[in-house]
Amino acid sequence: MGRFKDDTLVLHNDLYQINMAETYWNDGIHERKAVFDLYFREMPFNSGYAVFNGLKRVIDYIKNFHFSEADIDYLKSIGYQDDFLDYLRTLRFTGSIRAMREGELCFGNEPLLRVEAPLIQAQLVETMLLNIVNFQTLITTKASRIRQAAHEDKLMEFGTRRGQEVDAALWGARAAYIGGFDATSNVRAGKVFDIPVSGTHAHAMVQTYGDEVVAFRKYAERHKDCVFLVDTFHTLKSGVPNAIKVAKELGDSINFIGIRLDSGDIAYLSKEARKMLDEAGFTDASIVASNDLDESTITSLKSQGAKVDSWGVGTKLITGYDQPALGAVYKLVAVEDENGEYVDRIKLSNNAEKVTTPGKKNVYRIINKKTNKAEGDYITLADEDPTAETPLKLFHPVHTYKMKFIKSFEARDLHEDIFVDGELVYDLPDEDAARDYLTTNLALLWEENKRLLNPQEYPVDLSSRCWHNKHERIYEVTKHVKEMEEDHE
Amino acid sequence: MGRFKDDTLVLHNDLYQINMAETYWNDGIHERKAVFDLYFREMPFNSGYAVFNGLKRVIDYIKNFHFSEADIDYLKSIGYQDDFLDYLRTLRFTGSIRAMREGELCFGNEPLLRVEAPLIQAQLVETMLLNIVNFQTLITTKASRIRQAAHEDKLMEFGTRRGQEVDAALWGARAAYIGGFDATSNVRAGKVFDIPVSGTHAHAMVQTYGDEVVAFRKYAERHKDCVFLVDTFHTLKSGVPNAIKVAKELGDSINFIGIRLDSGDIAYLSKEARKMLDEAGFTDASIVASNDLDESTITSLKSQGAKVDSWGVGTKLITGYDQPALGAVYKLVAVEDENGEYVDRIKLSNNAEKVTTPGKKNVYRIINKKTNKAEGDYITLADEDPTAETPLKLFHPVHTYKMKFIKSFEARDLHEDIFVDGELVYDLPDEDAARDYLTTNLALLWEENKRLLNPQEYPVDLSSRCWHNKHERIYEVTKHVKEMEEDHE
Repeated sequence: MGRFKDDTLVLHNDLYQINMAETYWNDGIHERKAVFDLYFREMPFNSGYAVFNGLKRVIDYIKNFHFSEADIDYLKSIGYQDDFLDYLRTLRFTGSIRAMREGELCFGNEPLLRVEAPLIQAQLVETMLLNIVNFQTLITTKASRIRQAAHEDKLMEFGTRRGQEVDAALWGARAAYIGGFDATSNVRAGKVFDIPVSGTHAHAMVQTYGDEVVAFRKYAERHKDCVFLVDTFHTLKSGVPNAIKVAKELGDSINFIGIRLDSGDIAYLSKEARKMLDEAGFTDASIVASNDLDESTITSLKSQGAKVDSWGVGTKLITGYDQPALGAVYKLVAVEDENGEYVDRIKLSNNAEKVTTPGKKNVYRIINKKTNKAEGDYITLADEDPTAETPLKLFHPVHTYKMKFIKSFEARDLHEDIFVDGELVYDLPDEDAARDYLTTNLALLWEENKRLLNPQEYPVDLSSRCWHNKHERIYEVTKHVKEMEEDHE
Repeated sequence: MGRFKDDTLVLHNDLYQINMAETYWNDGIHERKAVFDLYFREMPFNSGYAVFNGLKRVIDYIKNFHFSEADIDYLKSIGYQDDFLDYLRTLRFTGSIRAMREGELCFGNEPLLRVEAPLIQAQLVETMLLNIVNFQTLITTKASRIRQAAHEDKLMEFGTRRGQEVDAALWGARAAYIGGFDATSNVRAGKVFDIPVSGTHAHAMVQTYGDEVVAFRKYAERHKDCVFLVDTFHTLKSGVPNAIKVAKELGDSINFIGIRLDSGDIAYLSKEARKMLDEAGFTDASIVASNDLDESTITSLKSQGAKVDSWGVGTKLITGYDQPALGAVYKLVAVEDENGEYVDRIKLSNNAEKVTTPGKKNVYRIINKKTNKAEGDYITLADEDPTAETPLKLFHPVHTYKMKFIKSFEARDLHEDIFVDGELVYDLPDEDAARDYLTTNLALLWEENKRLLNPQEYPVDLSSRCWHNKHERIYEVTKHVKEMEEDHE
């Protein structure tokens, strides 16, 4: 980054994190252990499920967590003092992180990731963890929804030019692949993540030659696999006939994969183009469509009988267009007191959904052994065994009268140990494994939870102990506020 | 990037660009000069103006444009052949780029940036230029709109955790500053771009201590400038009284700047908090508000008489929430023929707005010398002198009957030379200069073009020659399509 050769990501941080770190350090409580949960509250895109992602980048960040000399110099230049900076100079991450696997199904109000670390470290990693997980989970979720709409069709991620700067395009391409896309146009993503890349030519090439027949021929001279873009001048009068002409002319010397439509009425044009290709004997030729697609337009085009075999999806996927932020938060749920005992912590809010759930917790997926379907996720305090109680009582954490009992179930721990006392103990599965993991897990969900429009809400419930613990903390804090109020009167 | 030590951004590219590059190279036309325009069609956020940004990153990218050995190895692994790869190995950017200044007002359908370079180079830089300019222009525009809503209030960018991955947060912080924000919470942005940083503490610190009075005191021990966050438990019953208590207790030993509200009804809470602060004698204490703000909510809060002095804006700014992609495109407008003469190129579309404007062009801002206001932007062919014609006729490029004549005007060339024949010739102004430049230029616009809701459309017109040239090319291509059609019958 220009002026700073030893730039790190540790200052990719909100300033208040450094100020709080300094406060804890100054007060001598910075090494007390704290537990933070990372979670979102509302389902993105009104989706019935979301897909966790971001662990690859999180691991890389935590492994390399340190302040460079340039970082220290900068902090000094804005007023931090040497004693504190000396402390930061040798700071490394020595805590533990548990997290979901990449490609795991996830839902509102359950911890995707749990950090247990010396307070100062847990605080300093917040901003970066949120920045990573918010984006990558959002785009993986969007991609998975588009995969559902496209059924078995080929899906290609074409969004780089519309991504929000470089990292979003790169990591978004990876997220799309894990979410179920088949390929990306981003060559660097192919190189860095070893995922398939895809693409043929653009309008500019046809414009350069000024003539489709010449342009298609020139392309085919060097590229055996040909998809010709047919809408530079006029799709049905010029583009499709010229693609057919060149495909016939070149015959077996090329592999005529098909044509691409990038504008106009895709439903109409694809049906007409299909007829023309079939009549010319190219019944195997594919029709690729692109142009501001997402799960809604693909569903609509399919319901209109559009003859599209492959979909190129850009802007609406790479930005999560209809909801471009996931809104995950990172909240303190427990911190050691002076005796080294955890004290649970809560944050109140006028909004019931915004009250945090205190305590060091685990999260389990309750899978009904009879149906092999997920009945809900179940959040417990860390020392609870969800299988101890049978039948298991699942109840809605706000509308507590909604409850069900399950006898024969598996309780799958949704968290893996990633870091233990600063050591990376997790062997990250590659992108193909994450993609397959998602596919396998989607089979556990009822169709009603998966449908794109108005899905049935998937239950995320608290164990009785966890629920009671939360309400005791609410009572305590409300009482404390009342005392404060009287004190001020 | 993990596996590749010599990772570059040249493969941060759509695959089809490499395929087209190979086609041109194989055909021996790759060194022919071509001209591409980068522009957007529709105003983002229905705004009356947009603000160009991205040049710093563009310059860095173009200067470092080259294929590393890892890039070449990867391309070979996916099937490209050695002869072409040998050519790429030594490829550098040798063309010319003209562009608007960072902080320049810009509008739909005018070239923000013009590349004139050997065809292969101009093609290979497309994706990255769009990726950069699309995002940075979008966020600078959003920030400027928020600045208009906030009038003279302090504005802080707080979006890092919700930015779309790391680069978006970093470059978005810079864009916010150029757009008129006063500071960012992103410490690395402060370090890398030398822009002001801002921030105090979060809920977690109050939760850690479990008591606001203790937390505020601990914070003040090490930080003289204090803004206390007052909504962890109960804003009016607990937070504000405790902030006042600690401020009184510590007196002149701290600089009590004020309080921050991060939830609830900001209009009501800010008015009540203002009363409490005033009654306690802290009439100079500021009230900072944050929580899903943008230009609309700030306008609404101000109209309700909210007593807010500083605004912290996150998600809605850093993602351009209500329109998270600018949609700029990069279109071929001219290419050399075999004799080294430019031939203008066009792309047709069923949609009139999507037809490109052919030819190598310049863009001028027509400033009325009497009013010192901008009357419109004026696009000419590159060899035209806009001051030769007087009075100047400005007419709407689609509704051509809409016209006006201007006698006494200045025609300001909106493009600067950035690269000339591969050499960087531009001395990039720093962020403060770009920010000031925007402020100065906003004064040239009529209020009617600047208002946030339903602004008057600012004219972007074509010179008569440019307009006629476009229509001749449309005629030629339409005729060519007709011939093709008859040919296929």
